[in-house]
Amino acid sequence: MVKYIQPIEKLIRQFGRLPGVGGKTAQRYALSVLDMSETDAEEFAEAIIQAKQNVKICPVCGNFTDVQPCHICATRDNGTICVVKEAKDVLAIERLGEYKGVYHVLGGVIDPLHGVGVEDIRLAQLFKRLSGDVNEVILALDATAEGEATSTYISRAVKTYGIKVTRLAQGISIGSELQYTDEVTLSRAFTNRKEI
Amino acid sequence: MVKYIQPIEKLIRQFGRLPGVGGKTAQRYALSVLDMSETDAEEFAEAIIQAKQNVKICPVCGNFTDVQPCHICATRDNGTICVVKEAKDVLAIERLGEYKGVYHVLGGVIDPLHGVGVEDIRLAQLFKRLSGDVNEVILALDATAEGEATSTYISRAVKTYGIKVTRLAQGISIGSELQYTDEVTLSRAFTNRKEI
Repeated sequence: MVKYIQPIEKLIRQFGRLPGVGGKTAQRYALSVLDMSETDAEEFAEAIIQAKQNVKICPVCGNFTDVQPCHICATRDNGTICVVKEAKDVLAIERLGEYKGVYHVLGGVIDPLHGVGVEDIRLAQLFKRLSGDVNEVILALDATAEGEATSTYISRAVKTYGIKVTRLAQGISIGSELQYTDEVTLSRAFTNRKEI
Repeated sequence: MVKYIQPIEKLIRQFGRLPGVGGKTAQRYALSVLDMSETDAEEFAEAIIQAKQNVKICPVCGNFTDVQPCHICATRDNGTICVVKEAKDVLAIERLGEYKGVYHVLGGVIDPLHGVGVEDIRLAQLFKRLSGDVNEVILALDATAEGEATSTYISRAVKTYGIKVTRLAQGISIGSELQYTDEVTLSRAFTNRKEI
């Protein structure tokens, strides 16, 4: 198999480690780096190093941070904890600009088929936070089988602390047509119908 | 607009400069770097720096190289020059393992609509190479309008040196069905039909 010279092959291999990047794409990325100016390439490399060195996990909530504890934990209402799967979800909720409480990033959901058990995600850390003046835990996990199972597990545990547990509403998405809504969603929307 | 902390945003911006990478993909790549071990991230950054520093353009043929002139120019039959658009094309031909001559990488094709003129690609360098003992120039450019125009331009110029100019055969792709072959290809295949 004919290959590029070694430094290019190395770079292609590195790009190939990014999620969803196959051989052709990795090659395209690597060649585009060779097209960059020396300064641009250095900035790129520097951004990787800087991000890796400066981005830490907040010891309280598990979100990305460069200060400890993170600015959300430090400045917001600690009485409400919103539990999410990953840091990306925090960003999605923050964009709404409505939520004033703090977060707890699990770093995954319980998924026995892929070997993710109760002790593999930040559950113990969540339960440790409950012994304060927390009055509500909001479950904002994905509406997948694993997310649901994790929600059920957490809700049972949190209730033993006598703390209110809520979850995000499930139902038909705004703007979606009834005929294209999947059966599970439709059935859930029927069960949870609200008097108006 | 809510954003990630600065080092992550910077990294997302850097990934966003790769070809065909939009905001969501850049975010995914950046977060995957944060998931890497420190060593892995350093290797990634190092590969970028190393590639940028060590990969040079061969002054003779324009291909990527880490020695000067490149190992193809240094060791192969300089009597035949195969003209290609970019370094990737060299690799495609080298994979065949059949061609024994040298290459000339243009770094683009003449494309006035996108502001690429005769002096923007490595044409002068090609013509300079012709004053040796070159006996054939093979045009292996893309079968696009721009590739064809560039082939015509080069072939006219090379002929003035009294050197044989050939181009890759055009016709129906091996394994393709006649009914799905586009009209231009089919018409070209008819015109260039060969007695068997």
